[in-house]
Amino acid sequence: MAELLDDLARAVQHAVDTLRGDPGEILSRGADGAPSSRRGRVAEAAVLERLKTSEARVDVLSEEAGFIHRGGECLLVLDPVDGTHNALRGVPAFSVSLALGHDRLSGIEEGLVRDLVSGATYHAAKGEGATLNGKPIRVKPFDPRDTLFSVYLGTNAEPDSARVAGKARRVRNLGAASLDLCLVARGAADVYYMHSREQRLKLRACDIAAGTLIVREAGGLVLDLAGRDLDIPLTTDAHTDLVAVGDRKAWEAIQ
Amino acid sequence: MAELLDDLARAVQHAVDTLRGDPGEILSRGADGAPSSRRGRVAEAAVLERLKTSEARVDVLSEEAGFIHRGGECLLVLDPVDGTHNALRGVPAFSVSLALGHDRLSGIEEGLVRDLVSGATYHAAKGEGATLNGKPIRVKPFDPRDTLFSVYLGTNAEPDSARVAGKARRVRNLGAASLDLCLVARGAADVYYMHSREQRLKLRACDIAAGTLIVREAGGLVLDLAGRDLDIPLTTDAHTDLVAVGDRKAWEAIQ
Repeated sequence: MAELLDDLARAVQHAVDTLRGDPGEILSRGADGAPSSRRGRVAEAAVLERLKTSEARVDVLSEEAGFIHRGGECLLVLDPVDGTHNALRGVPAFSVSLALGHDRLSGIEEGLVRDLVSGATYHAAKGEGATLNGKPIRVKPFDPRDTLFSVYLGTNAEPDSARVAGKARRVRNLGAASLDLCLVARGAADVYYMHSREQRLKLRACDIAAGTLIVREAGGLVLDLAGRDLDIPLTTDAHTDLVAVGDRKAWEAIQ
Repeated sequence: MAELLDDLARAVQHAVDTLRGDPGEILSRGADGAPSSRRGRVAEAAVLERLKTSEARVDVLSEEAGFIHRGGECLLVLDPVDGTHNALRGVPAFSVSLALGHDRLSGIEEGLVRDLVSGATYHAAKGEGATLNGKPIRVKPFDPRDTLFSVYLGTNAEPDSARVAGKARRVRNLGAASLDLCLVARGAADVYYMHSREQRLKLRACDIAAGTLIVREAGGLVLDLAGRDLDIPLTTDAHTDLVAVGDRKAWEAIQ
């Protein structure tokens, strides 16, 4: 189904490029109450329209619309625009995240994340590795002399987040979970750490389904905060914190 | 001289695109001891080569080569690749920064920052405002309910940086000073805060000459940590911390 995800990602890219320069005002709330932008709604509509003309029989779980039953044989887990707030304010970091699978995060078989600013495309299929623009990518072995962490910070971050950030030589944060996960997958970041105070602001399956498979297929780990392999159901109401690392030694370094 | 800066930025973009996918290993140290990548050296060479065939009589202050006397009537302040470490590790945030002026930061007359990943181009001329891809940009009035700060963090950040980050609803950091400044200029960030422990790791004229003018021409402020308008000499050995804000109220909010 690699063609399906790529085809859908191109439909989103086209829809979003058409809107470029548009104010992208907040119109409503998505399925879980998060703000929904015009860009996100247009991107979701582009995917649903494309699915109509496709032979793929998939149900859809989307950040914007929630669960859409289409008599499918598997589930398309979609975040049409991850990094909505970046897109609204003009931070050039937002993406479309698409994954195919069943039931739970561990049941995802294929994932694709496209950076909608640069067009870079990350892809993974279970057991077949991860790629960036078609070339294989691998996580980076941990080197304590050259550490770069992506850490979720600000008023909604639990205080231990500042402790984690303080351990890295360099700290970055793109503010779009799928892209922050891909930084770990390509070896750009050693750690992506997300620990939210508020339950409703934690990460959702739509945000992380594709990125989690991409990190794992690139040789990395996506864990809960107790260090176990993360697994959540593919539903609109499951929320989670997470830590993604390229190397188990990076996990040990932040304890 | 708007054509000159744009022409030089295109030369850098071309040189860097040609290298894309190259490992970009560290080859030497720049004028101030910072690591210098092949990408940076190639980008600088592209600018110097282009200047040879140009009629512009400018001296050059470059992040890589230091001061180059060419019998010029004004000074071109150049960072061929700002965000070298991002480029080396694969974080998609690096830029070329070009500015023209005399003697001090306050003597910069024109500045251009090009995002080498997306191709977005920020420009400002003194007294004429700032643009992004040719369209005017303005800073954002401060709204305490929707705060986004770019904060320099990690082991080299002074502890008050974590305090500043903790005041924002959202924290981002691109790790390339010229791009972080442009986030403030376009209203994407309310604050860019950089407070380094080590003197040699503070910001330099080459990093901030263009971005500072772009913020100021977009209606914002670039200040030292005491809240005075920042001014430093255009030399290789001047180093500084800074705080850029779109609105004086953002400065007050982080005190």
